[in-house]
Amino acid sequence: MNQNNKKLVASVTSRDQDFAQWYTDLCLKAELMDYSDVKGFIIYRPYGYAIWEGIQGYLDKRFKETNHQNVYMPLVIPESLFQKEKDHVEGFAPETAMITTTGVEDLQERLIIRPTSETLFCTHYQKIVNSYRDLPKMYNQWCSVVRWEKTTRPFLRGKEFLWQEGHTVHATEEEARRETLDILEIYRELGEKYLAIPFVTGRKTEKEKFAGAVETYSIEALMHDGQALQSGTTHFFGQNFSKAFDIKFTDENNTLQYAYQTSWGVSTRLIGAVIMVHGDDEGLVLPPYVAPTQIVIIPIQGQKPEVQEASKSLYDELKKAGYRVSLDDSNKSAGWKFAEYEMKGYPVRIEVGPRDLEKGEVTLVTRHDRKKHQYKVSDVANSMEHILKDMHDTLYQRALTHVNEHTYEAKTYDEFKAYIKMGGYVAMSIADEEVEIQIKKDTTATARVIPFDQKLITENCPVSGKKATQTIWFARAY
Amino acid sequence: MNQNNKKLVASVTSRDQDFAQWYTDLCLKAELMDYSDVKGFIIYRPYGYAIWEGIQGYLDKRFKETNHQNVYMPLVIPESLFQKEKDHVEGFAPETAMITTTGVEDLQERLIIRPTSETLFCTHYQKIVNSYRDLPKMYNQWCSVVRWEKTTRPFLRGKEFLWQEGHTVHATEEEARRETLDILEIYRELGEKYLAIPFVTGRKTEKEKFAGAVETYSIEALMHDGQALQSGTTHFFGQNFSKAFDIKFTDENNTLQYAYQTSWGVSTRLIGAVIMVHGDDEGLVLPPYVAPTQIVIIPIQGQKPEVQEASKSLYDELKKAGYRVSLDDSNKSAGWKFAEYEMKGYPVRIEVGPRDLEKGEVTLVTRHDRKKHQYKVSDVANSMEHILKDMHDTLYQRALTHVNEHTYEAKTYDEFKAYIKMGGYVAMSIADEEVEIQIKKDTTATARVIPFDQKLITENCPVSGKKATQTIWFARAY
Repeated sequence: MNQNNKKLVASVTSRDQDFAQWYTDLCLKAELMDYSDVKGFIIYRPYGYAIWEGIQGYLDKRFKETNHQNVYMPLVIPESLFQKEKDHVEGFAPETAMITTTGVEDLQERLIIRPTSETLFCTHYQKIVNSYRDLPKMYNQWCSVVRWEKTTRPFLRGKEFLWQEGHTVHATEEEARRETLDILEIYRELGEKYLAIPFVTGRKTEKEKFAGAVETYSIEALMHDGQALQSGTTHFFGQNFSKAFDIKFTDENNTLQYAYQTSWGVSTRLIGAVIMVHGDDEGLVLPPYVAPTQIVIIPIQGQKPEVQEASKSLYDELKKAGYRVSLDDSNKSAGWKFAEYEMKGYPVRIEVGPRDLEKGEVTLVTRHDRKKHQYKVSDVANSMEHILKDMHDTLYQRALTHVNEHTYEAKTYDEFKAYIKMGGYVAMSIADEEVEIQIKKDTTATARVIPFDQKLITENCPVSGKKATQTIWFARAY
Repeated sequence: MNQNNKKLVASVTSRDQDFAQWYTDLCLKAELMDYSDVKGFIIYRPYGYAIWEGIQGYLDKRFKETNHQNVYMPLVIPESLFQKEKDHVEGFAPETAMITTTGVEDLQERLIIRPTSETLFCTHYQKIVNSYRDLPKMYNQWCSVVRWEKTTRPFLRGKEFLWQEGHTVHATEEEARRETLDILEIYRELGEKYLAIPFVTGRKTEKEKFAGAVETYSIEALMHDGQALQSGTTHFFGQNFSKAFDIKFTDENNTLQYAYQTSWGVSTRLIGAVIMVHGDDEGLVLPPYVAPTQIVIIPIQGQKPEVQEASKSLYDELKKAGYRVSLDDSNKSAGWKFAEYEMKGYPVRIEVGPRDLEKGEVTLVTRHDRKKHQYKVSDVANSMEHILKDMHDTLYQRALTHVNEHTYEAKTYDEFKAYIKMGGYVAMSIADEEVEIQIKKDTTATARVIPFDQKLITENCPVSGKKATQTIWFARAY
């Protein structure tokens, strides 16, 4: 490692020394984002935004394949409209930003910048849903939302963030419940197949559910530091919103019925999950399918014609094969380039040098394990699919092992507290919401999910001594 | 035409009777949009949004091929930041919406919802541009912006609209000027190759240019009613913003220089252009490449197994060939379906009926001329590329003929007034800005563009009698 390399790497805080500072360092130094002049509003720089475009591409395709349609609803919600569903407004009111004036004249009614768009979708659905023939309606929108959070961190919690929000209307409860779980499965697969993140899925407790929902489901990811990150949610609304917004349809027997609804979303918070699940002390580690650049080719002694030629021809071959590849033939030092692209987490680096070329070879370095491999030049393109798949699988397994090694069952409250301190998920069978509140007060750990597979660990609740009613996974969370 | 058909079609106002009402009817009845509870903010319904997604797809590819990168800047601009470039703030201040409170507490500084993001990009560029090695920076973002317009119309003028805004920084004036014109050409080609709209291009007058620009260029489209629609603009900023925002870099001789900048954008206004250039009394006419659904297959006597089978197999074949095709085998009447898909402007309708099938044929109806064609079932898929290309070319030529037939040269002011009344572009050689203002006052016509090919029509200005300095295309405009 040369001088430049050392210097660049040294500027990232060690992950195990100060995880929070390591995270911020990566966000800035990998050029994913920058701060703007307004606290809590970030700039998504090209590299960070490209990761989001990847996630958008994956999900948008899945949504469309499952008959969802994209729409765009207004940015603003009249204050009176926002107040229609009681629980919903109570949940969101404290963090709403409002337009009150144009600078020239004050508005007659304050306009809330959407923190989420249930009220807008419901108003529209009320107008366009009349008959069972109009159902289901399954809409999604890609947009940004604003929530006036006090404590903000890049990607994890901001006053503005980018997301998709799906909003659907169904004729039957069964269909709406199925939609809620179908989307949860699409989110889970986004993790398994695209981000190499093993999401834990389950239902949220009453306390943690969405404001206005009957049930909320969640995908949770475990960060390297043992804290959980809620990474996406789906909500079954029952008829809560359809009754508040009067969304009725005539069924096949010509009877008026209230519709059943869902909503669901994931956000740029997923970028934070990718960073904190896979990154290391050298910088980002991007799973190959989401990585904006999958392969970088670096000529060594690039002034030599045979190096130039081989680099260019390998670049063309990989590009033609559909890989996202770049060629850095700038006059920066090789050491600088190595450090830079390790920092940015490019999955594969190919060093094309004269000595390797004499043997008809190049050196290929995989970012996730920083191992060097010698490849025949003629084998590189053919091997790439396997290399990337293997890398994806390894990253997923590594993250899964991390989850498994940091998932505990607590039979006593002392055990629970000890596990929570160690970091990770702790399953415990508790009595009721009072206990959930007590646990948060005592340990700052919150209920992440009620797993689908229910089995009581202890007959009685270790905290209250009362009969245990369900097993919940707890963790400290972002 | 059966009863249903008649009824549906009759509900659209005739284009030549009341163009404005016809336009609004189409927007609503083709389900492109709906009004929201806040005047000037519209709902982009699935069909309207899909057109926008098509435009996004075309442009995003072109931008990326030409080395532009997508980013996302904050929704809000601190009022003090917005005021940094004098002309810019004067141009936009009257129509800015401001966040002043969260409902719980008032903000210390008012935040403007972006009407355009020059100030945000400039602040960021000031931080990240240091050396000529950092240049050019060529960023684009897809987002919505808010301008507090008094008079609003769907897609044409709204308090909120969707757009892309490109913002670039260059080391030299030449490169920035080239970028301004390169993007103008991409916009022009969007019209020629994708929307079947012959855009007229040229420079804006000083009076009509963008607030803060040195020069503004524009693509203008001529609507069926003879009014022009400014459909996109590119701006050369020179060093206006770099001086106001202190964007400097060290050049190759280690000298500090102010950078040169551009910005450019098109918006969902283009949807309005597509409607008003191509639509007719039966509804929308969508050019085939932008049409979300290119082909609809309608079984006639769909209960017959051979009809079902042939319809399904044709659907599969066309879908596999990459066309955007739908099959409507619902139990609605054929007449209803014909009217519905004519209203929505689907380019091709294929009627699959038992009598045609006996001859191995289907009936194909092209929307733009409503002509019926008999095709061998086995020829349909192979012919489709040609059918769509021919339709695109015909639509483009039809629109171009409309432009040519409504473009006039005026040698006297009386001629000018007469032509303007007839609708269309009127070229006249005028003396100065005073005349331009006078013309607008007298006729409501505005300067659309100063064409690149300059040739004086008259030696003296027909309005002022002074020496003519340049030829300008005028029109009444949306």
